[in-house]
Parts: sequence; structure tokens; C-alpha cells
Amino acid sequence: MHGLMMSMPLQISSLLRHADRYHGDTQIVSRTVEGGIHRYTYSEAHRRARQLANALGALGVRPADRIGTLAWNGFRHFEIYYATSGSAAICHTINPRLFPEQIVYIVNHAADQYVFFDLTFLKLVEGIAPHCKGVRGWVAMTDKAHMPDSTLDLLCYEDLINGHSDDYTWPEFDENTASSLCYTSGTTGNPKGVLYSHRSTILHAYAAGLPDALNLAARDVVMPVVPMFHANAWSLPYACPLAGCKMVFPGAALDGASVYELFETEKVTMSAGVPTVWLGLLQHVEQHDLRFSTFRRTVIGGSACPPAMIRTFEESYDVQVLHAWGMTEMSPLGTVCTFKSQQANLDREAQYALQAKQGRPIYGVDMKIVDDDGKELPWDGKAFGDLLVRGPWITAEYLGGEGGNPLREDGEGRKWFPTGDVATIDRDGFMQITDRSKDVIKSGGEWISSIDLENTAMAHPAVKEAAVIGVVHPKWDERPLLIVVKKPGAALAREELLQFFQGKVAKWWLPDDVVFVDELPHTATGKVLKTKLREDYKAHKLPGT
Amino acid sequence: MHGLMMSMPLQISSLLRHADRYHGDTQIVSRTVEGGIHRYTYSEAHRRARQLANALGALGVRPADRIGTLAWNGFRHFEIYYATSGSAAICHTINPRLFPEQIVYIVNHAADQYVFFDLTFLKLVEGIAPHCKGVRGWVAMTDKAHMPDSTLDLLCYEDLINGHSDDYTWPEFDENTASSLCYTSGTTGNPKGVLYSHRSTILHAYAAGLPDALNLAARDVVMPVVPMFHANAWSLPYACPLAGCKMVFPGAALDGASVYELFETEKVTMSAGVPTVWLGLLQHVEQHDLRFSTFRRTVIGGSACPPAMIRTFEESYDVQVLHAWGMTEMSPLGTVCTFKSQQANLDREAQYALQAKQGRPIYGVDMKIVDDDGKELPWDGKAFGDLLVRGPWITAEYLGGEGGNPLREDGEGRKWFPTGDVATIDRDGFMQITDRSKDVIKSGGEWISSIDLENTAMAHPAVKEAAVIGVVHPKWDERPLLIVVKKPGAALAREELLQFFQGKVAKWWLPDDVVFVDELPHTATGKVLKTKLREDYKAHKLPGT
Repeated sequence: MHGLMMSMPLQISSLLRHADRYHGDTQIVSRTVEGGIHRYTYSEAHRRARQLANALGALGVRPADRIGTLAWNGFRHFEIYYATSGSAAICHTINPRLFPEQIVYIVNHAADQYVFFDLTFLKLVEGIAPHCKGVRGWVAMTDKAHMPDSTLDLLCYEDLINGHSDDYTWPEFDENTASSLCYTSGTTGNPKGVLYSHRSTILHAYAAGLPDALNLAARDVVMPVVPMFHANAWSLPYACPLAGCKMVFPGAALDGASVYELFETEKVTMSAGVPTVWLGLLQHVEQHDLRFSTFRRTVIGGSACPPAMIRTFEESYDVQVLHAWGMTEMSPLGTVCTFKSQQANLDREAQYALQAKQGRPIYGVDMKIVDDDGKELPWDGKAFGDLLVRGPWITAEYLGGEGGNPLREDGEGRKWFPTGDVATIDRDGFMQITDRSKDVIKSGGEWISSIDLENTAMAHPAVKEAAVIGVVHPKWDERPLLIVVKKPGAALAREELLQFFQGKVAKWWLPDDVVFVDELPHTATGKVLKTKLREDYKAHKLPGT
Repeated sequence: MHGLMMSMPLQISSLLRHADRYHGDTQIVSRTVEGGIHRYTYSEAHRRARQLANALGALGVRPADRIGTLAWNGFRHFEIYYATSGSAAICHTINPRLFPEQIVYIVNHAADQYVFFDLTFLKLVEGIAPHCKGVRGWVAMTDKAHMPDSTLDLLCYEDLINGHSDDYTWPEFDENTASSLCYTSGTTGNPKGVLYSHRSTILHAYAAGLPDALNLAARDVVMPVVPMFHANAWSLPYACPLAGCKMVFPGAALDGASVYELFETEKVTMSAGVPTVWLGLLQHVEQHDLRFSTFRRTVIGGSACPPAMIRTFEESYDVQVLHAWGMTEMSPLGTVCTFKSQQANLDREAQYALQAKQGRPIYGVDMKIVDDDGKELPWDGKAFGDLLVRGPWITAEYLGGEGGNPLREDGEGRKWFPTGDVATIDRDGFMQITDRSKDVIKSGGEWISSIDLENTAMAHPAVKEAAVIGVVHPKWDERPLLIVVKKPGAALAREELLQFFQGKVAKWWLPDDVVFVDELPHTATGKVLKTKLREDYKAHKLPGT
């Protein structure tokens, strides 16, 4: 027997329609690539998104067609999000920081019909266009006055929409319809496409708005610093219209001074981004002895947030730090480190220790840690194992079936997505990432966290960068090898560094050897390329073997 | 093309499973009918709900079977919510304040298989049981020691579950499956059954938790004063486990002293209920010069909240009042009066005026006001018309098709549920109820609000109660007739009362006549029975006709 409630599919278009009807006057402010500030309202954004939907139709874009974007956070990117998904096409956000050959692969794999790009990326586009034969048009996200000279026959965004009426009714369709697409940039193999649906996006937006997640109210002024090409900007382009928040888009200017200026002029209350951006912001305000007038909360994710950053934000600037964790395959939100009553009553030092953890799942996400045999490990804050997750906004498979079926089924018939992270979970359900699964060192049946060892090495004043990999060992299967870049001019001996680990990690975790190098290999997004290190050092002979 | 996210139906059981896994230690506290306080955790609630699910199976309860409850807010009622819906049966909450013949009608119409009841309602149950032939068993929600003598062969709740293991895996099924049932008590015709689904309940719970709705965090201690037999206690039995709030159930003791005591001993931060309860609470704290140590927010709905109550809560007790509106057919939440940025900057008096409105819709609910021809009326805060709503947690039809298709379709093919309320909407999207559709007085093609006239009359110091109905008029179709109960011993003449209206309402709204009576007829739930008044006064001759 079915319930007798209205049958209404969850649709992304309804978010913008809601914002238009109930927050029509609320502003969306953008720092533009062309220079200057653009300012309009949800009502105007909705009107222009409908014009763009008509324009896409006129270009021959049909349901399920992929539309690529190479763009910063700004009002036109926001309009593209809604015009594509709202008309049943698919918004494919592409990370412009990837290597050009990766972008070519992604555009062709996704079979993008049109690609919209910010002027910043003109050269990039001119370089890749000859290799993207399937793309029927490249649209410069600007007006006629700013159209660049180009080797390509470009379309102009404003011309495109100006020719079209805003008379457009968002169609209603199956909520499982694909809405948007984002490729993960793995350190091995080709990027894989994560295909979101209207259903997953709306459920995720509801969850993102909750008080113990991003906590979004209509009185908030939100600046998504996290890029819209990076896992839906953590849902903010959806969760902000849902709540009616004023939005402030920083464009390409992510330096501390520019971010600070927008925070102050636009009265930003909440923001979200990766640690690097906040480092720049904190340096700027410290150097100039500045204060935040309205900024009160920041969500930090993407990589682990340094404990010192949490402390500085909270003690020096009265800004609450919400440490969060997720991944492209999770839409991306999984956990947020918000306190329960027990934690709210802890002393401040204990709270800081807790805030270093990535937190507890929002309802909708379930998680567990398992050993090599898939057996669930205890929640004691010590045992660490592969982190598995499940939920209605978590990937079941990649576009085109790339990489095969990623899911693992447990004894109760539940299917779980292996995150590739290794984590602990404490008795209160707070999760902490300790490593990537492929980086963890398996020594004598026990696991050693490469990240813990790297963090310990990095705490030495003479160390600039450190990486730890597992190297084959005849007795223990693998043992840790520490690879270090010294600070310029610093002197540091192998023995002195190993001595530094004493008392900081378990004795059997101590690296078996140290190698000093001039630099470490990195991925396009700045992560240490451990696959390369493992390849380079696979024949490394550890002392005593 | 479908998205490639996990296909996971929304299931009510997952709320309690989530609370168990991530908030297992968090308490649920109940004032019991037997006397004393009961205290346990989400983990224990989950364990006992699984035992009850096994017990229901052993009783022969099958998917889609209806299980009735006649119960206060308490831990066993909470367990029944989850054991029934979680096992694909239907939790049918019955309002014990209805007339016994209405309850008999409801139990039989719903075809309840078993009815669970609190000891308070033993006499009621003994009275109706002979007329409810389809009920296979009556379960007293108590333990063996408290089992009453009865004319019936009762089952005992604790005996029932003690015999069963907690080894039970919640089944997974279509999210549109019916989960729970609640009858509306109209003032005309038989009660009609509203049948919720797992999908509607989960979507509604997400929305309810949002910062601009009930704003529920894991640090909150929530007391649902609104009964669990009244439209899902405004979602709190679902939205609290979702967020991990501590819950405090007041049982049958809703007097000011009892509520206050639990607020203080259990450190309640947030509560929700109808104005009558808060009146009792405020009287108690005022009489005894008390303060609230932790109570900071209250949601008030069910009927319009008197402006003076909002002011007292906020000014004297620093308790934020959230005026809310909804109905059984809406799961029930529709609007909450939370400020946007513009309103947050208003002066306090302007804010109080705004807080008298029922507020703006949570995302998921859309609304509009229309005239007699279905034409949408402007959002100017003045025009009032029939309030229509739509959304995935709003009724499409009643159980058994009672009353026919309630929905109205607009020109764009959208279906809307007519709330039976008449309202204004202002330019910021804040809605205010001005009347019930059937009570509005249609005079010369214009509408007159009976509620506004009644409120004006009630403001006269000699008036105890007032009702305004439309009476047939040869020229104007209808004109208002004011029917008044004077305060004991008060003297009040017709002309004096009419004079009192001058300057307070539009001139053409002035009642054409006044009738003084000893008492007004009421429904079982305390509302003035206007159908009876209209019947009694249909031949009333207005002066000048």
C-alpha cells in the first residue's frame, strides 16, 4: 500500500524557483574575470537561467547532453548549473587545473556538446579544442565588449542569451535523471566520471543545510571559495538557494587580500574552502592586523585541516571552524565535525583535539571501517581500517562503467563504497582519516599510517616536505621508507631525524630508512605522487635486509 | 540517462538506526503515565523497537496492516512509531480527545488490527471496544505490575516484547510505501485519513531540521509538547533522531508546573506546542517568579499565536518564538516565521508585527493565494484569498478516496492542495492566515475576515468569546453577524460594541448585527462550531432588510 502524498519528483530547477519566489530580492554578488563586481538577485538569476535554457534548446542541446564548463565561481557559472540541469541536460564541471591532456580526455570521454569557459582559460581552450572534435561550440562567458581575439570561432555568452526570451517552464521528469557530472582526478589511471542525479543533489542539499552540517539560514551571506568545478562547490550552489542565503562568488581572485575585501564589503558570514586558501587569508589579516566584521563560520575540507589553523581562527578571530570530509563520489559531503552535547561540555583543549577529526556523518550517510577481510573494526578511536560509506548521494558506478563495479557487499546484503581512505572512528562516532588505503604500510599484518609519519617528519624544523611509502621487506612484507626534502640551507642527518620520531610514534612504526631528495613529484592538483615514488624506490634496499 | 548514485529508498527505520549508531548514548526521557521518570538511550530504543517488530510479526501483523495508538508522548509510543513503520506496517495515531463515536468510526474505517493505549485511556477503550469488531487485540502500554483490571482481555506491552529477541533486520522496500496514518477532524463530515509515506516522512524530516525551520542540532534537548497523535508531533519523533537531539517526552502532564519542572531538570533547549500549553507555562513561571535556565526556542502553531505571548516569551524570558503553520494534510509543516536579512535588521516593534504572521515556506513547500476563479492574487500583504499549497509531503487524496479528489489544477498543469485557509502573502513571501475559507464572509464580491472581526470583538473588556458568521443579505449576498458571550456580570450593549469597532476595521466590514448568547457551540477539540451557528442563524433577519 502506497502513501497518498503528492507525487513530485525532486528537481534541481525547483531550488532556483523557490529562491526566486521567496528570496527574489536576495543578492548574488560576483567578482568578475573581466574586472569589477557584478550584482543581481535570485529573481534575475532565475530569469537569465530560463533565457539560457531557451538558448541551449536553440543550439540543439537535448536531454542528457553534456555541457562542459571551465569556469570560476561566478553568476554565469551559477546560471549554467541551473539552465543545463533544469532542462534535463547535464552540467559537466571540468577542473581547469588538470593537465591539458587530462582535460582533453575528460571532454571526449564525457562527449561534451558545448563547453562554456571563463576568459582566464582562453589559451587552455585554444590548445585543447583541436583535440576535442565532438565539441560543437566553445562559449566565452562574457559580453560582446570583452570578447577576445581567438584562433577559434567562439560563441559569446551574453549574445547567446540576449536573443532568447525568458518564457520557459522547467520540465518535470524522473528524479533519477542525471543532472551533473564531475571527474575524479585519481593518482592512477584515467579520471573517472561521477554522474549525479536530481534526486541525489536535492537530498544532499537538504542534508548540507542542516545545523550540524553547513548550517545555512536565510540571514547568512555565503562565499563559496571552494570551486564550482570541484564536487559541486560542496553543494553551496544548491544549498544556498534552498535556504535563501545571499551568495558571494570570488571569481578568480582567491588571494588573501581579495577574499578579505569581499568578506568585508559584502558582509560574508560563512565560507567554505580548502586549507591553502585559509592560510593565505590568515597571513593577510595577520600582516595587516585586520579583523572580520561579520565572518563567523568556515567549513574546511578537501584535505586535513592543520590544528594550528583551527586554533588561530577560533582564538584570534572568533571564527568557528567546521572540519569536514567528503569526496567527489559523495556529492561530496560525508562528515562534519560538529559537537554533540558531550563534546560541547569538554574543555577547550580537548575540543581542539576533537576538531582535528573529520567528524560524524550527516543523516543519509552511513560509514564503517573494515580490515583486509572486510570485517568491521571497533569504534575505539585507535583501530584503523578501510573506510566504507553508503547513502543516496554516493556513487554506485562511474560513467561508462570505468573501473568496473566499485562497491563491496557485506554479509547483510548492504552495498558500500570504499572511499580509498583509511580511518579511525571513536566511540562517539567521530571519524579521523589516517591514510589513503593505497598508501598505508602493511607491516607484519599490522597497518602503519604514512600520514602520521609524514606529519611527524614535517614537524621537524629542518624538513620542508616529507613522504612515506612502503618498501618490500623479506620478513615484514612492507616497511616504511621516509623520503625528505630539507629546507634550503638546513642541515639534517638520517640519525637525527629518526631520533626525532622517538616517543612520537609506536616503536615498530619507526621508518627503516631515510632518503634525502631535492624535490618530490606532485600531481596537477598538488598532491605528492606516491605511485611515482613507489616506482622509483621499489628496489630500495632497506638496512638490515 | 539516469545518474549513477546508489539506489537507496528513503526508509523511516534508517532514522533510528542512524541515531543508534551515531547518537547511541543520547537520552530519551519520559514522564510516565504510571508515575515517575523513565530514562534510556537511542540504542535501547532501537533495541526495543526491534523486539516490538518481532512481536508484531508474531501477532500476525503484516505489511500495510494498520496499528492504532491512543497514547501520550512517551518512549513506548516512540517505539511503536518505529516498529510499525519500520516493518512496513502503518502507525495509526488516534486523537483520544475526539468523541468516542468518532474514534470508533476512525478505528473501523482504518481497519486497525491492534490498538496500543496508555492506561489513561482504559475507560475509553473499554467503551469503544465492543464497537470495533475488527480489532484483534488491545495492548496496554505498561508492564505487568501496572496491568489494570478490565472488562477486556488486554495484552501487556512489556510482556509482548519481553518474549522476543532484538534480532531483527529492518526490511528495505519502496519508499512510497505507506508509513503512518492520521485522521483530520473536520467540523463537517466524517474524519478523513491522511496516509503518509516513508518518502514524505523523510523529506519532511530533513526540511524540519533546517536552521530556518525547527533548527535542530545534536546539542539540543527537545521536548515535543505537541502530541504524537497530532500530525506526527510536527515531525519531532523523526527529526530529533535525524539530528541526534536528546528527547524529553512529557506524557500526560501538560500543566505549567510539570512542563517547567522537566524543562529545568532535563535542560530542555527547545520545545513545540499549541498556544494553550504555553499560556499555562507562562502563568506558572510568572506566578512563581521563575526563570528558564536552558530553554531558548519554542515553536508555536496549531492555532495563531497571540502577539502578547510572543512578546512575553522574548522580552521577559529571552525565549525565541517561532510562529509556524501547517496542517495534518501537510505532514504538517508548511511555513515558519524566521527572518531573512531584511527582517533581521528591522526594529523590534516591526519584528513583533512580522512574528504575528505564520511565515514563509520551507523549501519543498510552494504556496499561492487565489480568488474565487482560481486567479493568483498579488503578494502585497493586503489581498487575501484561498491558500493553496503543493509539495512532496502534502496530501494528494484521503484514505479510501473519501471526499473525492481534493486537488485543484492550475493553467500550467500544476496540482495544488486547497488548505481551506484564507491568507495574505506580503512582498517578502511571509504568509498570514486571515480566515478559514468556509468562514470568510462574501459581501458584494469582496471578502471579509471573520477572524479579524472576532479578534476585534475579543479585545473588548466585556467580551468573553465571540464568533462572526455570514448571514444572507438581499443586496450584498452576505453580511457579518456578530455572536457574543459576555464575561460573567459584564454589561454591554449592542451599540457600544459596534462603536468599539470604529477605526479598527474598514467601515464596510462592520457587523450588521449583534446577538448575545450564554455560550457558543464547540467541537471536540475546542474550536467554535460555526456550521452549527450558521444553521441556527440562517433565518436571522439583519436590521434594514
